[in-house]
Order: sequence, then C-alpha cells, then structure tokens
Amino acid sequence: MANTCFEVGTAACLADVTARDDADPLAPQRDRFVLPDGVIYLDGNSLGPAPKAALAALHQAAHEEWAQGLIRSWNSAGWAALSTTIGDKIGRIIGAEAGETVVTDTTSINIYKVLHAGLALRPGRNVILTEASAFPTDIYMAQGIARSRPGIEVRLSTDNGPDFLAKLDDQVAVVLANQVDYRTGALRDVESVTAAAHRAGAVIAWDLCHSAGAMPVGLSAANVDLAIGCSYKYLNGGPGAPAYVYAARRHHDQLVQPLNGWWSHAAPFAFEQDFRAEPGIRRMLCGTQPVLSLRALQAAIDLWDAVDIADVRAKSLQLTQLFIDLVEASCGGHGLALVSPRDGSARGSQVAFAHAHGYPIMQNLIERGVIGDFRAPDLLRFGFAPLYVSYRDVHDAVAILADVLETGSWRQARFATRAAVT
Amino acid sequence: MANTCFEVGTAACLADVTARDDADPLAPQRDRFVLPDGVIYLDGNSLGPAPKAALAALHQAAHEEWAQGLIRSWNSAGWAALSTTIGDKIGRIIGAEAGETVVTDTTSINIYKVLHAGLALRPGRNVILTEASAFPTDIYMAQGIARSRPGIEVRLSTDNGPDFLAKLDDQVAVVLANQVDYRTGALRDVESVTAAAHRAGAVIAWDLCHSAGAMPVGLSAANVDLAIGCSYKYLNGGPGAPAYVYAARRHHDQLVQPLNGWWSHAAPFAFEQDFRAEPGIRRMLCGTQPVLSLRALQAAIDLWDAVDIADVRAKSLQLTQLFIDLVEASCGGHGLALVSPRDGSARGSQVAFAHAHGYPIMQNLIERGVIGDFRAPDLLRFGFAPLYVSYRDVHDAVAILADVLETGSWRQARFATRAAVT
Repeated sequence: MANTCFEVGTAACLADVTARDDADPLAPQRDRFVLPDGVIYLDGNSLGPAPKAALAALHQAAHEEWAQGLIRSWNSAGWAALSTTIGDKIGRIIGAEAGETVVTDTTSINIYKVLHAGLALRPGRNVILTEASAFPTDIYMAQGIARSRPGIEVRLSTDNGPDFLAKLDDQVAVVLANQVDYRTGALRDVESVTAAAHRAGAVIAWDLCHSAGAMPVGLSAANVDLAIGCSYKYLNGGPGAPAYVYAARRHHDQLVQPLNGWWSHAAPFAFEQDFRAEPGIRRMLCGTQPVLSLRALQAAIDLWDAVDIADVRAKSLQLTQLFIDLVEASCGGHGLALVSPRDGSARGSQVAFAHAHGYPIMQNLIERGVIGDFRAPDLLRFGFAPLYVSYRDVHDAVAILADVLETGSWRQARFATRAAVT
Repeated sequence: MANTCFEVGTAACLADVTARDDADPLAPQRDRFVLPDGVIYLDGNSLGPAPKAALAALHQAAHEEWAQGLIRSWNSAGWAALSTTIGDKIGRIIGAEAGETVVTDTTSINIYKVLHAGLALRPGRNVILTEASAFPTDIYMAQGIARSRPGIEVRLSTDNGPDFLAKLDDQVAVVLANQVDYRTGALRDVESVTAAAHRAGAVIAWDLCHSAGAMPVGLSAANVDLAIGCSYKYLNGGPGAPAYVYAARRHHDQLVQPLNGWWSHAAPFAFEQDFRAEPGIRRMLCGTQPVLSLRALQAAIDLWDAVDIADVRAKSLQLTQLFIDLVEASCGGHGLALVSPRDGSARGSQVAFAHAHGYPIMQNLIERGVIGDFRAPDLLRFGFAPLYVSYRDVHDAVAILADVLETGSWRQARFATRAAVT
C-alpha cells in the first residue's frame, strides 16, 4: 500500500493511519502485550515488551511449579522438555522442521557451538568467514575458537557482495552470516547467500537475532545448515531469555560440538562416565537451563500460534516505509540521513538515521516517550515490531521527533547513562 | 551435641527434637521459604525451595522492570550489573573476595571456561585430572575439550587419595575436584587437596555444586585458583538459575577462556571488531543472561546476609547425624546400608543409604510427603538444608521411612517417571 500520509498532524495523515490500523490483521495482537502508558515503543528489536501471557506463566512457574511442585516439576510441569517444546515452536517461526531447533544458553554460546559444528562438518578446511559488520559477539566467538584451536583462521569480509564472494574460497569451512544488520537494518537474502556458501563447499550458519519474528526466514526452504538466534527481541521472550540453535536434520549424525554437558548426553540420568551424544538436536544442549525465564519465553512463543508470519512481514514493510516517508517529509533540514536501505526488499524491520547529535536526540526522545536506541557513533535506531506497533504509533513518534528537532529540545536532554542491550 | 533421641515416636525423642528446634539459631530462616503443606523437603541438594523474597523479586522484575521499564531497566534496574552484584554476594558465602566471582551461564559451561583457563595458566602441560566419581558433566566437559584440542588428555583417578596423588604428575595442568560427592556426600578437604595440586605444579578448579550454602568453603584461605558451582541447590536460586564462576584475583591478568562473547569485552557497547578482555572477573562472562531468573536468584542470595555459615555447618552436621542415628535405630533389619561417611567431618550435607529396592521406596516416600531422590543403581539420597529443615522434620521423615519399610507400602508405589535434576 502506498502511503497517502506525508505530513504529521494533518487530518489527512491521521485519517490515513487510523484507516490502516483499522484494516490491520495483526491489530488484535497489540492487546496481548503490556505497553506502558505514554510510551511509543520502537525498541522491540532490542528487548520486546511483556506479553500478558508471559507474566501469567511466570507467576504459575514460580508460585505453583517451583514453590509447590519443587523438584517434582522437572517432570510434572514439563520443565525437562522445555528446550525442545519451545524449540519446535520457534522452528515453525523460522521455517524449520520439528526436531531441528532447541532453546538453550545464549546467542554467543550457540555461535560457538555451530562454528565448531561447521568446522567438524568440513574437515580439512580451517576458515570461519563472517562480515566485519557482523554483530561483534559473532566475531568475538569466532576469535575465541581461533585462539584456542591452532590453525583455525577468522576471515572478515568488508561486504556481503564481491568481497564476501572473493573470500569464500576452498579453505572456508563455515560462513557465519547475519540475516539483518544490527545497525543499518540491511537484509541479506538467505537463499542466495546460502547457495553461494554451498557452491564454495562451505556450510553456513545464520544469525537470526535481528530477523526472527519480523519476517519469514525459511531455513528448510533455503537448505540452511545451521542457525542461532536470541528470543528476547521480536520474539518477546523476556530480558535475556535463552537463545536457540537450529541444525538441519541431515547433519545430526555428524553434529559435534565441544560444549557437551550432561543435557546433551543420550542418557543424562544414567550418570555414565563417558559422553555419548543424544542422537537428535538435543546434542546441542549443554547444562541446566533457567526454567523461570524459559516459562515466560514459552508463553511468549505460544502467541505465534495465531500469527501468520507473512502478515508480519507485510506490516513490517509498511511501518518502516511510513516511518521513512514521514521523517523525510516532516523533519527535513535537520540533518537526519537515512542509513537503512530505502528499498523495502533490502530492509529488515528497523530503520536507522544518522545525525551528528544522535545521542542527545535519542535521550530526549526517550524522555518524551518515544523509545528507540542509539548506536555509536551517530545512529538513531528505531525498531518496528508488527505485533504491537501501530501505524498511529509511527505517526505520533515522528510528530515528537519533528518537535524535538524543530524546538531543539534535545539540547536540554539529560545525558543518561548509555543504555541498551542490542 | 550428642543425640539423645534414638527411637522415633517416643516422647523422649519428640522432646529432644523440639528442644533442638527451639535452640536453633537458624530456626527463624525457615519462615522465609515457601514449604508446601504435607511435605518434608529433603531434596534441597537438588533444587532448593522458593524463598518468599525471590517470588516477590520475580514479580517486580516482570511487572515493573520488564513490563514498565522495558529496555531502560538494563540500567535503571541494575540488570547489567547483576552478574557481579550477585557474584560478590555468592563470593562471601564461598570465602572469596569481592570481584572474584560472577554469576553466569551454567555449571557445565563454566567448567569449560575454568578448564581452558587452567590449561592456559600451565602452558606445556596437557592433562586435566579429575575423579571418575565426579559429577558426570564435569567429565563430559573435559572430554569435550580433549576432543576439540589435539594433545589434551583427560585423566581420571579412582579415588581422592593414593590413586589421585599418583596421577598428579608434572603433566597435569589443572585438577577438577568436587568438594562433595554428589552420590555419597563424601566431603573433600579443600585445603589439603589444593595444596597437593599446587605441590605438583597444577592449578585447581573446585566444583562447589553440592557444598556451597551448606558449609564454609574458604576459597581464599585455601589459595584456590578457580571454582564453579550452581545456585539452585543450597543457594535456593530457583530451577536452573544461572551458575557462578570464581577466579582468584592473582590470575585475572592471565585468565583466558575461549567463550569470550561481548559481555566479557572491555567495552561491550563500543561494538569493536576485535576482542579485548575486560580486566577483571567479568572476562569470564560471555552472553546476555536470563534476567528474570537472575532477579529471583538475587533475592535468594540476599537471604544469606543474615546467616552465619558456621551456624549452617554446625546444624548440617547435627541434622545428618540425627538422620543416620534415627534410621539405623528405627529401620534396622530392612536392608538399608549407609553409603555416606559415618564420620561427620568427612560428610557433606546429604546422606545416602543403599537399598536393593531403592527406587520404589523413594517413590513411596515421595507419595507420602517425604521428598528425597533416587540415584541409580540403588541409592536413596536425602539432603539436609539447614536454613529450612528442622530437627522435627528429620524425626518425622524417619518415622515415615520406618513405616514404609515396616508395612511394605513401597511395594504398592506408583512407579512414576524417574525425576530429578541433581
């Protein structure tokens, strides 16, 4: 749908965003979240808000399952199965088959596992290839492997195009790619990048942190080997909720990773002395997971049963396009420069603008109820989560941004401690 | 205090346990926990019960910090500092200095970190030495390192005495020792074992899962290099609550481990391309931690501010001794054999009896409200957490056990799925 709304505050523009909200098939989802009064939340790409069902599940997990059930709840409340129960549901969101995804540990640790697994799948090759612009922990985890395993090399490409392809040679065992760039929101094409890695004889691991829950991923359709992601951004699992790891079933028999704790053992409660890997995806588990956080996550993921991910992508594109159009129409002459792709097909669900005074501008926006985040050196980053962000939110956020710039209120912003976990 | 109570159900015995409870300096702690009606909980060595303050903290974390504070709570609610805030408090419980302990990840993953760190502290040595009777995940994690790092060897000793010392040669880089044996409850002497490792030129990592919160550990006093442990047993942090890792300050500059995610970076929010380790103990962190679980843990750990760990050990010894004495006096002739050390100074805070029908007996005990656990092939395991287990609990549990054996009610026990996470 082309925008008919180009100037915030006009009757035409308000009528336009109201009409869009009325027609939005995802509009009923908004009421499933706690959204604080006076806040327009455009940071769900960093931490999703609380689903009401997650708060209820957490209460049940704490007061009934832990406090009353005690140790018995590992079985009676299904705690021991949560990693796969939730994993399978996340698998549906990212286009995996059942039995290919588990929830466990952190994104960083799961990167370590899949990189080791990738190296093991391609013996004789010694290079991990990723982009210099990847989220830093991706690179750090690869560097940690290189430091502790002689001969392993981390290679960085300066782009996702020519330089990436030039560096994708026959020494590359595993490619680690980010579907959406955490700063710019630039979107990679999973199918073509995966195919390129495969043509070079490498396996590929996708980092889905900034894409899962905002668009279809299609892991099986793209023949992806491995993937990881966090659950606390567009999946709304709660602060620091455990991450997930995916491995295509065709690799399970050869899937090895060094973090094989007792939860990845074929018989964890036999307390055997030698490690024997569980046959399926549970071999990517390691130790005991934080159940309270997992139970909140489980309820958050259950929301997706009622959601068509195609609707999510469609709305995401409209929200980001509307935001770009309105900002450029209403905030012109104030030094904002679009950093995210203008072409929707190349854009994730976030929009970044650069501004020389980005930090105090974002602080002032937050003070005035529009929560986005700032990324050094100069990026204002706004995320648009289609489950709960409305077209009216976009309009109102831009109206406040325009006022912040027009009045210069940002010059009086309190310089709060820099916040945010990407 | 010598027992004066030797036969359950007698007036003398009831008077004795009542008098002990009345005189117990830790008795006021019991009311700080939710203890379900009709349950005597002797499985706190597997999963501690819910502190009331932890339930309250969890509610606040979910409804206020997450739902209302959203991303801002990383700073405003102190989320970003939780690993060290809680870590320092756990440090006090285990005899570490401030700045030597962080809460993060799982026991298994932290074992991986400290073993790598130990190997790096002793270049030129290639052996990880642990006991064959160590908790299996300790061994599995060591095996994972050996599989992924050529030249590294895992050596198992069959005991903690002569065979251990014989295997402690100049190839051993790091010893991994369990302070309390998870099956038998046998207690290792931290000082002398640490000293033996040091004499051999090795560093030592202690697994405190089955000891922390039940007795003094004295890491600094014993000159311990490294340690790890879980927080959901005697520390009552909640199911699967994040684990902790300790490293003596003298090692921090040389402390390297391969799981260096962005949370162990010197400037995590600078998003630099190359890894630079945080100077202190935070270099043992990796990725984003589960905040909801951490906040429950934090409240559970705060309980210890009012507790003298010497009182805990004193009561623990009395509880376990009373249990052994009463079982042997009241359940004689039914085939129970004490597996735990009879000498209190060699015993942790749990007591194991072997019985040929251990599994159905434990199932029946649980049905009748006495929750312990079973460990194959034949162990009935009972944990005595001094903060909330009373002397009367011990008496009543033995009375029920005696009845189970006397009447043979265990023969009708429902064979529930095997439960429990150690």
